[in-house]
Amino acid sequence: MARIGIIGSAGRMGQALQAAVTAAGHDLAGGIDKGGDVQALAAASEVLVDFSAPAALEHNLDAAIHAGIPVVIGTTGLEERHHWLVDAAAVSIPVLQTGNTSLGVTLLAHLVREAAQRLGEDWDIEIVETHHRMKVDAPSGTALLLGEAAARGRGVDLHEEAVRGRDGITGARKAGTIGFASLRGGSVAGDHSVHFLADNERLTFSHLAENRGIFARGAIRAAEWIIGRKPGRYAMGEVLDL
Amino acid sequence: MARIGIIGSAGRMGQALQAAVTAAGHDLAGGIDKGGDVQALAAASEVLVDFSAPAALEHNLDAAIHAGIPVVIGTTGLEERHHWLVDAAAVSIPVLQTGNTSLGVTLLAHLVREAAQRLGEDWDIEIVETHHRMKVDAPSGTALLLGEAAARGRGVDLHEEAVRGRDGITGARKAGTIGFASLRGGSVAGDHSVHFLADNERLTFSHLAENRGIFARGAIRAAEWIIGRKPGRYAMGEVLDL
Amino acid sequence: MARIGIIGSAGRMGQALQAAVTAAGHDLAGGIDKGGDVQALAAASEVLVDFSAPAALEHNLDAAIHAGIPVVIGTTGLEERHHWLVDAAAVSIPVLQTGNTSLGVTLLAHLVREAAQRLGEDWDIEIVETHHRMKVDAPSGTALLLGEAAARGRGVDLHEEAVRGRDGITGARKAGTIGFASLRGGSVAGDHSVHFLADNERLTFSHLAENRGIFARGAIRAAEWIIGRKPGRYAMGEVLDL
Amino acid sequence: MARIGIIGSAGRMGQALQAAVTAAGHDLAGGIDKGGDVQALAAASEVLVDFSAPAALEHNLDAAIHAGIPVVIGTTGLEERHHWLVDAAAVSIPVLQTGNTSLGVTLLAHLVREAAQRLGEDWDIEIVETHHRMKVDAPSGTALLLGEAAARGRGVDLHEEAVRGRDGITGARKAGTIGFASLRGGSVAGDHSVHFLADNERLTFSHLAENRGIFARGAIRAAEWIIGRKPGRYAMGEVLDL
Repeated sequence: MARIGIIGSAGRMGQALQAAVTAAGHDLAGGIDKGGDVQALAAASEVLVDFSAPAALEHNLDAAIHAGIPVVIGTTGLEERHHWLVDAAAVSIPVLQTGNTSLGVTLLAHLVREAAQRLGEDWDIEIVETHHRMKVDAPSGTALLLGEAAARGRGVDLHEEAVRGRDGITGARKAGTIGFASLRGGSVAGDHSVHFLADNERLTFSHLAENRGIFARGAIRAAEWIIGRKPGRYAMGEVLDL
Repeated sequence: MARIGIIGSAGRMGQALQAAVTAAGHDLAGGIDKGGDVQALAAASEVLVDFSAPAALEHNLDAAIHAGIPVVIGTTGLEERHHWLVDAAAVSIPVLQTGNTSLGVTLLAHLVREAAQRLGEDWDIEIVETHHRMKVDAPSGTALLLGEAAARGRGVDLHEEAVRGRDGITGARKAGTIGFASLRGGSVAGDHSVHFLADNERLTFSHLAENRGIFARGAIRAAEWIIGRKPGRYAMGEVLDL
Repeated sequence: MARIGIIGSAGRMGQALQAAVTAAGHDLAGGIDKGGDVQALAAASEVLVDFSAPAALEHNLDAAIHAGIPVVIGTTGLEERHHWLVDAAAVSIPVLQTGNTSLGVTLLAHLVREAAQRLGEDWDIEIVETHHRMKVDAPSGTALLLGEAAARGRGVDLHEEAVRGRDGITGARKAGTIGFASLRGGSVAGDHSVHFLADNERLTFSHLAENRGIFARGAIRAAEWIIGRKPGRYAMGEVLDL
Repeated sequence: MARIGIIGSAGRMGQALQAAVTAAGHDLAGGIDKGGDVQALAAASEVLVDFSAPAALEHNLDAAIHAGIPVVIGTTGLEERHHWLVDAAAVSIPVLQTGNTSLGVTLLAHLVREAAQRLGEDWDIEIVETHHRMKVDAPSGTALLLGEAAARGRGVDLHEEAVRGRDGITGARKAGTIGFASLRGGSVAGDHSVHFLADNERLTFSHLAENRGIFARGAIRAAEWIIGRKPGRYAMGEVLDL
């Protein structure tokens, strides 16, 4: 049983997190949102779980460093400078930053990387994702994370190989590229499929989230895992021992 | 048993057509390609099946009118002026023009139209297709045909409602739109799915072509059906009595 | 706004129904369970929604007849004699009995019937469903309902054509049969797919329920629809005007 | 370039094998069928590929041992005593025996094993396969091979955990079991999906064969790989370096 503090406690994800803390038998040290006292929350917690906003990241990391406790960061939309902040904090405290806290997606990314490594360039890679109608960006962060896994497996740079928003006269598919497609509609919590398409055979690796609860559950599992680690930057895969 | 002439006999589709003619127990009156004598072919045939090129359409229709025989047109890439040519020819002879000669796709389009008519705008429509790596355009003609069916079911104009190549900061999904996404890879002969996505439930209607043979088989079935019809423009759905 | 009484108010479905009543802006006249006073509930309601048990059906129908109000019956596991009770009650009051109150499934069944009618016996029909690990029977009632729709479309008797639990040395597939397969696991609320498999092409019609809410929502929609109808037995398709 | 001899050269698979030998730039040393002279074939070949019948296995292995050349065995329906024959032959020559020569299926089995190892028993495993209407047994050998991979990943015995042909009143799903379901219809060359179903999330790993060519291609790839190996029993995964 751990005392877990939630940063970004309002909104649907924040509420799912608070529910997951108690469902897993932990103590909810508290939950704060914009304007809340993160220093006080850190002082009362054994570990922080941050699903707030990139703008708040520096302040949140400072509070964790000050309290000497680990942080799990699930905030999306991080840019390069935010990753520097994470790296800097990881000198003093354990930090796990991830674009997706689902254990299923984490395993999927691992297996996609392995598949991409084993299969040659004659297996074309295409990634398709579906999300609810309110989502404002495409492709999803998770689709990009899976594309990153495929690119690493192949030893290429995703930025150079990604083909997004295919439309019109595209010409034949360029060998080695990684395609992305996005569907939007209904209340879909998140479907992701990675296709490996070869001559006469196809492999597909898919993940379906029935609801947001899985992200909260995985974040709490990461929080349990990170308590007591030595300072450093960790990834979600380590929680599954991948 | 009918005497069937093939225009556009080279290439993979032309060869599948010739195989389908004999597989169905018909006589192959002949097959021509660019530069071939379509007048002679028409004279020797009871029906023509044209899978050649838009540029050849006028010439081919003239030959059929001259011989007084029906034509099945599966040529893709037709523009508005080609459709006028088809309409003009249909005054004198029976003409069946279609973007997809598969019986499965034809039924699918019919059912998609009906679903779109019954379901309100709270069911978002998304169409996704996958084709082999050599395909040079997106979305596929069949995906657009399915989008057209959905739009007609809803009583809207596809040109106004289509959302293609979703990528980047798109904002929330606009109600009433019809989304398209395209995957490319391997040797996929053609997969199409139409998704209706509502709050908490989803309907999906899919067609998978294992190979090109189905288009040839459907074209021959259309050729059988059109012999003896009175002049006019026909659609693939009529072959299935839809 | 209607006063709606729920029979079978405990359990997950009963609670979803009560939530759906108020979410749709109706009055919850009350909810009873085993041992509750259905006569009093009927007296206080404009319409009853019964998701209780087959054993309670006769008593529930009597109460509705006595109060002169319509009933929506979503109870599963009905046997032939229960259907006679429904028929008998329908002489005096409007009764809508259905194996699945989802609007999506209702439309799906309608389209499956139409597809089965249009496509010949060279299109093999296979139905597969997935449900959560607690489900105790297979195939699901909805899978059987979809099989019934396919059988009617083909003009055959499902009891004679159904092939269930295929395993071992089965021999080649018998033409005209309708296959069923069931998967169980996780918290799947209900996936159903009807496959039409021909030489070289396949059509698949699928429904996915993200949660049980859709059944409650559809039941309430049926309750709204049935108020004011004349006595008789109605089906879910009529709610969608199919 | 290798001289490859085919045992079981009639039938669809045998013809696909012969085509694959020449497509890959090898020499077809010859192809024999029931009653053919396997000793002469072995003498003329650098490697044998056997897709004949279990009853012929002993004789075929003897011929390979006599000629001192490796064998790739894709014959299905082997029983325990056939595996002893394979083991015995592997003392003298390299033997690769496999239930599925597709590279995609081989990789899939590897990843399924890994997924089963990483995910706890709260992820239910279900395997579903679809094959053409002429297939006489269920589940397919490949489905069983995938189930075997899952069982090994979990450290359990597939015979004890397999649940096949689920139908009727089954009771709730028993934790730790591995379910199998089989669909039959059309000309489906072979679809296989392995589902891992947890609370609120699902992982699915699928393989689709567009035609039989992939099995022939993989068998020839295995034949290339095994030439020059030392005596021993090899598995398909080693060809992919898994």
